[in-house]
Amino acid sequence: MSFSQIEYGVTDRIATITLKRPERLNAFTFTMRGELVKAFDLADDDDEVRAVVVTGAGRAFCAGADLSGGGDTFSHREPSELVDGSPRDGGGTVALRIARSLKPVIGAINGPAVGVGVTMTLPMDIRLAADTAKFGFVFARRGIVTEAASSWFLPRLVGIAQAMEWAATGRVFPASEALAGGLVSRVLPAEELLPAAYALGREIAGNTSAVSVAAIRRLMWSGLSAASPWEAHAADSRLMAELGSAPDTVEGVTAFLEKRPAEFPMKISEDLPDGVPTWPVNPYGG
Amino acid sequence: MSFSQIEYGVTDRIATITLKRPERLNAFTFTMRGELVKAFDLADDDDEVRAVVVTGAGRAFCAGADLSGGGDTFSHREPSELVDGSPRDGGGTVALRIARSLKPVIGAINGPAVGVGVTMTLPMDIRLAADTAKFGFVFARRGIVTEAASSWFLPRLVGIAQAMEWAATGRVFPASEALAGGLVSRVLPAEELLPAAYALGREIAGNTSAVSVAAIRRLMWSGLSAASPWEAHAADSRLMAELGSAPDTVEGVTAFLEKRPAEFPMKISEDLPDGVPTWPVNPYGG
Amino acid sequence: MSFSQIEYGVTDRIATITLKRPERLNAFTFTMRGELVKAFDLADDDDEVRAVVVTGAGRAFCAGADLSGGGDTFSHREPSELVDGSPRDGGGTVALRIARSLKPVIGAINGPAVGVGVTMTLPMDIRLAADTAKFGFVFARRGIVTEAASSWFLPRLVGIAQAMEWAATGRVFPASEALAGGLVSRVLPAEELLPAAYALGREIAGNTSAVSVAAIRRLMWSGLSAASPWEAHAADSRLMAELGSAPDTVEGVTAFLEKRPAEFPMKISEDLPDGVPTWPVNPYGG
Repeated sequence: MSFSQIEYGVTDRIATITLKRPERLNAFTFTMRGELVKAFDLADDDDEVRAVVVTGAGRAFCAGADLSGGGDTFSHREPSELVDGSPRDGGGTVALRIARSLKPVIGAINGPAVGVGVTMTLPMDIRLAADTAKFGFVFARRGIVTEAASSWFLPRLVGIAQAMEWAATGRVFPASEALAGGLVSRVLPAEELLPAAYALGREIAGNTSAVSVAAIRRLMWSGLSAASPWEAHAADSRLMAELGSAPDTVEGVTAFLEKRPAEFPMKISEDLPDGVPTWPVNPYGG
Repeated sequence: MSFSQIEYGVTDRIATITLKRPERLNAFTFTMRGELVKAFDLADDDDEVRAVVVTGAGRAFCAGADLSGGGDTFSHREPSELVDGSPRDGGGTVALRIARSLKPVIGAINGPAVGVGVTMTLPMDIRLAADTAKFGFVFARRGIVTEAASSWFLPRLVGIAQAMEWAATGRVFPASEALAGGLVSRVLPAEELLPAAYALGREIAGNTSAVSVAAIRRLMWSGLSAASPWEAHAADSRLMAELGSAPDTVEGVTAFLEKRPAEFPMKISEDLPDGVPTWPVNPYGG
Repeated sequence: MSFSQIEYGVTDRIATITLKRPERLNAFTFTMRGELVKAFDLADDDDEVRAVVVTGAGRAFCAGADLSGGGDTFSHREPSELVDGSPRDGGGTVALRIARSLKPVIGAINGPAVGVGVTMTLPMDIRLAADTAKFGFVFARRGIVTEAASSWFLPRLVGIAQAMEWAATGRVFPASEALAGGLVSRVLPAEELLPAAYALGREIAGNTSAVSVAAIRRLMWSGLSAASPWEAHAADSRLMAELGSAPDTVEGVTAFLEKRPAEFPMKISEDLPDGVPTWPVNPYGG
């Protein structure tokens, strides 16, 4: 698989997706949208991959939609952006694909993340930022709306008051304000950003069952959508029953009791329990 | 329109609603309830208004329900408080009217905000407080319950643990505790409170499309209610399509590319896209 | 009622439930599960009890599921764990019982709280921790999933990013990280932990109507589950009408106006209004 606007690679059981149009500050395009969806498919399908890090090439993370189409930028539609004849926002296609990832996703926001450049990070599990990063939900300054399903993700991440302050002003703000507002978990010197992201990835890869983490990720994001704790209880009870005598569980408990590292035998490609919540792929998914 | 218990005025594209019964610490009445609903109608209908600031006259913001009816206060019903024969809580009528405002609402909490005096602020987008403000969800100390739909708003704003600590104790607490608990965004010296609220209003008015902000406000609050990110994606995709070639979008993108301030031509009264989520007005709304 | 793995007592209108297998770090068993459910039934049925404190005997709060069954621990099923033939996770049975408590529940986490030892605390209203406490959502390190409906509770308490970081790494972390992440409200020196929990209990017992607090607790947790603020408005309007002329309300308002402590006459066992939201007991409850 070769990509033109992103880069995809796997090292040490961690996939890295790099937005790669540095001469355009990694501005988002229809092509990039499709490549991102494919890259997350690759990561999900590869049992070697235990976590995904997303970052940007050059000095930006992603400057938002590519505005080289001028005032006409947001009215242009590729045919494949239509689902049953209705347009589907491109940022949302990527966001919903990330939301249903089977691997934890870590955003390593190395520079400006504006418009879809920041909303695409909201369905990631953890966001780390370089101290040189800047953020902006600038949609109201362009005449459009918060997209990429960010009206669902953002108020749940940072609270509705912070979400509305950023979205109604359209303000561009520094990493320190993103940290204080709960948008990112940590702010680091630029040279420590990727090492911190990979350290998190290794903490996951080195200690946990891949099947557990995939099931937990779907449970947790479904739980945030679930109407009640009883729904969550039904879902996790089923998974506890399915996994109760599974090889990873036997190994996990035994290794713990023997005070040795666990060697989990199960694979996502073959052993994912039926009870793992599914998220819709069509018509809205990527 | 003349009001007896509030004051309404528009300056510099920002409407100010002032609770105005200073001799009663702006205690909430049936009359005030109706006037607040009408004032938000005025603000929504006036294209000149880009943001709404709510504050109190004198030393209080709002001391809660007017208890001059004594022990009988909460059993008295005006006929118009009934919807289909069932009573509808007055604080909730105001809260739900604020929730569906088309303009961002900024609470400038200048002094004590207790009972409905604080619950009415929860559907506002941003709450700023003077360092002399005090807060109290005192309902359990009076024998009643958290009203004004605050059982929906409060745990989403501050988390269920903080919400339950405040509501179960009925404690009156200072602005510093409100800030630490996430109830207000900032605490300021009293003389800086209104200037800070107006600065936020000007930041919105001076940089953004009114139609975008109205659509975003409805999207975001609907998003907080939405069952899933797919619902949000369907809603924002529709709005992105409707606004993609709209005059505000063409101007917003063009002005950005030309590095000049945008002059947005569209008006809420005439140009609100069909896709803006509607919130119920009846039977529960104000 | 005599218990073998917990202790239950009432002093000064506050019930204390103590996990009591100190030689096993209070590890969770099928027996403990049943006893916890019964203890919450006792607390709900006793009008003298105004709040519940949950803590652990010895140096741990609860080390998680008792793993003395070895690798087979999570596949063993007691017949009564089945509901309509389907297994129901034991931690969830306790969690959902706590969620529907009519009395506020305060966790006093005196030491390690790991696995079900921490997830059982999520439906408590307030969590206080000793500075010697440690926490771990270690499920992915054992091959299982986040249980006890924690996929619903945890992302609502601490946000999805913090929830996923803890759950995907399975990391054991200190009280300071729990505080920074919003899992606990306060961290205290060990000897100040129970006094702080009881001070909260007395603040509730000494100032509020028991019926109000029960109704508010159900309203607030239901509000966190409710699809929209209109549902919350309907529920709180009904309760405001039912309680508007009730004895506790008349006393609460009169005492406030007379600047004296209120003496609330109503009892949960006899006077709970019909409008208090019910939470399912079967088939999922405890």
